[in-house]
Amino acid sequence: MRRTTAYGARRPDEELSLRTIERRDLRPDDIAVRVTYCGVCFSDLSALAALPAEGADQPLVPGHEFVGEVVDVGAEVSRFRVGDQVAVGNIVDSCGTCDMCRAGQENFCAEFPTLTYGGRDRHDGSTTHGGYSGEYVVREDFAYHRPENLDAAAVAPLLCAGVTVWEPLRRWGAGPGMTVGVAGLGGLGHLAVRLAKALGARVVVLTRSPGKADDARQLGADDVVVTTDDEQTARAANSIDLLIDTISAPHDPAALLRLVGLDGTLVSLGYLGPISLETMDLLLGRKSLASAGSGGRPRTQELLDFCGEHGITADVEVLPSAQVSTAVRRLAANDVRYRFVLDLSDLPAAGSRRG
Amino acid sequence: MRRTTAYGARRPDEELSLRTIERRDLRPDDIAVRVTYCGVCFSDLSALAALPAEGADQPLVPGHEFVGEVVDVGAEVSRFRVGDQVAVGNIVDSCGTCDMCRAGQENFCAEFPTLTYGGRDRHDGSTTHGGYSGEYVVREDFAYHRPENLDAAAVAPLLCAGVTVWEPLRRWGAGPGMTVGVAGLGGLGHLAVRLAKALGARVVVLTRSPGKADDARQLGADDVVVTTDDEQTARAANSIDLLIDTISAPHDPAALLRLVGLDGTLVSLGYLGPISLETMDLLLGRKSLASAGSGGRPRTQELLDFCGEHGITADVEVLPSAQVSTAVRRLAANDVRYRFVLDLSDLPAAGSRRG
Repeated sequence: MRRTTAYGARRPDEELSLRTIERRDLRPDDIAVRVTYCGVCFSDLSALAALPAEGADQPLVPGHEFVGEVVDVGAEVSRFRVGDQVAVGNIVDSCGTCDMCRAGQENFCAEFPTLTYGGRDRHDGSTTHGGYSGEYVVREDFAYHRPENLDAAAVAPLLCAGVTVWEPLRRWGAGPGMTVGVAGLGGLGHLAVRLAKALGARVVVLTRSPGKADDARQLGADDVVVTTDDEQTARAANSIDLLIDTISAPHDPAALLRLVGLDGTLVSLGYLGPISLETMDLLLGRKSLASAGSGGRPRTQELLDFCGEHGITADVEVLPSAQVSTAVRRLAANDVRYRFVLDLSDLPAAGSRRG
Repeated sequence: MRRTTAYGARRPDEELSLRTIERRDLRPDDIAVRVTYCGVCFSDLSALAALPAEGADQPLVPGHEFVGEVVDVGAEVSRFRVGDQVAVGNIVDSCGTCDMCRAGQENFCAEFPTLTYGGRDRHDGSTTHGGYSGEYVVREDFAYHRPENLDAAAVAPLLCAGVTVWEPLRRWGAGPGMTVGVAGLGGLGHLAVRLAKALGARVVVLTRSPGKADDARQLGADDVVVTTDDEQTARAANSIDLLIDTISAPHDPAALLRLVGLDGTLVSLGYLGPISLETMDLLLGRKSLASAGSGGRPRTQELLDFCGEHGITADVEVLPSAQVSTAVRRLAANDVRYRFVLDLSDLPAAGSRRG
């Protein structure tokens, strides 16, 4: 086994603290990645909050959007060499044979994909530990070449927040002649604005905070609708072709559906749970309600290539890894523009800790 | 005013009976149509059932899918001449200026379209009376040229049942390489099967009745899934690209959503009312739920042209108009394959009753 250091916790109320964890020895198709930067995703907070009050058997090590350098490769690895700059997202394996995997949507794998942390390895049954760590061992198929012209820290959030908005933008054909609405201007939302704009769409940001209008325009939005202003929402009724809803708190889709136009789609990216829906809100205008989450391998690499070409990254606040608790606390309070990224290059190198 | 005879009722429990009604004198853009055949739609039953128990001020005359011959034209009519064979559907006017009307989706007119019966005329405020009558007066823009190579009675149901399935088939691009599911094999469903097949799609009929499998195959279905058979539904999971749900009774969309595949859409054509939806059923496979109803002018004429080219009509049981109550009773019991059509040519001609 390979030992590395990582930030983890066993209980919901426990601060993340540095501890030693083990990574598997490389399988033939594995690479070892020295993690340099890892984004702090809202899912990380949810996973920590979901820990058992009495404490889990193993620490939860969050982190599923990270970048780093290849430091070791398995015997059959063909796509990477030591020294390559790579990125890893929120899934690290899948069955590879179901319809979804064959369609390049490993995120919907019929056997459920192996999550980057808190997942169960398909081969040895071990629990996966995430990217808040010095080193990660991953199948080469679930690592991606990182565009080296972009700031490494600002690339990390593309691997979860980025691909989560990229998939629906591509699925529903965001581009010239289309109006894309983005509800919520956080980690996902600010990337949705940039990506939709770069794809050629007209972009409208929907926000409850009039104070975010300037930020939205700076990100590239053509228009802003303050959803607490009845006059503005009435004017925007039926005007949006594709509405990307990034709001993570449970909410009623009815108000957003009214902004969607003929043959348009409201895509919810947060898991809304069970909802009540007045189907007349769909019928009048033949609207669709959809839900999407994370992404598959082909579109993840496509996103990274697109961002490399268009110079698109996330707006990040980089913190030393020792300030992980600050990041978690401030993210919970929505106090970030727009993503925290931990600098993990300050952890001891994995090489010196190999078992 | 022009007088004509019609079948109508004022109370939910009253049998439809023959009575004299008035049609407006022709406006410059009106045509008068001698009705020959009118389909009996499930909506007609719903409208009759919704009559006030104490009796309405005016009789309700149902009927919103009919064919006939032009017998008179207004001064400015340009598209029709006396003697033309025409068809009329479930809307007879709209504002003409809103986004929906300009998009050719008068069925979603922002001011609500004028319904063929039980609607309110936009000019004189009178209540519209439907096609269970000898003559109908309609704006020429809401009448269509009927393909004369097809059986007239069997064309009538295309104007409501037909266009209601045609619009979603076209909106979601039914064609070669796509699997279209059709849930429910009634007036709408049997036409959906024929039209989807003629468009080049693979067609799967979903039915609760094993006895309908042969009928489905005769209509052109490539496959049949009996939805009460767990083995069959498990085998069909995630296999349908576009599922046209024609079931009119309220039902939970969850079971049908499981049959929809990656990036697929479930379109409900009956009004489901408020529903509960587990959004995870959408998320896993990035599925969409949509609702659609009736159609606009461009696609109505397109459907009639397509049916003329492909020799597609509804399977109908034609009854003399005096048997209207039989049709209503048997349709309520689902005892029809697949649409009743009333022969209204047996009513006295409108000309002899002109006021």
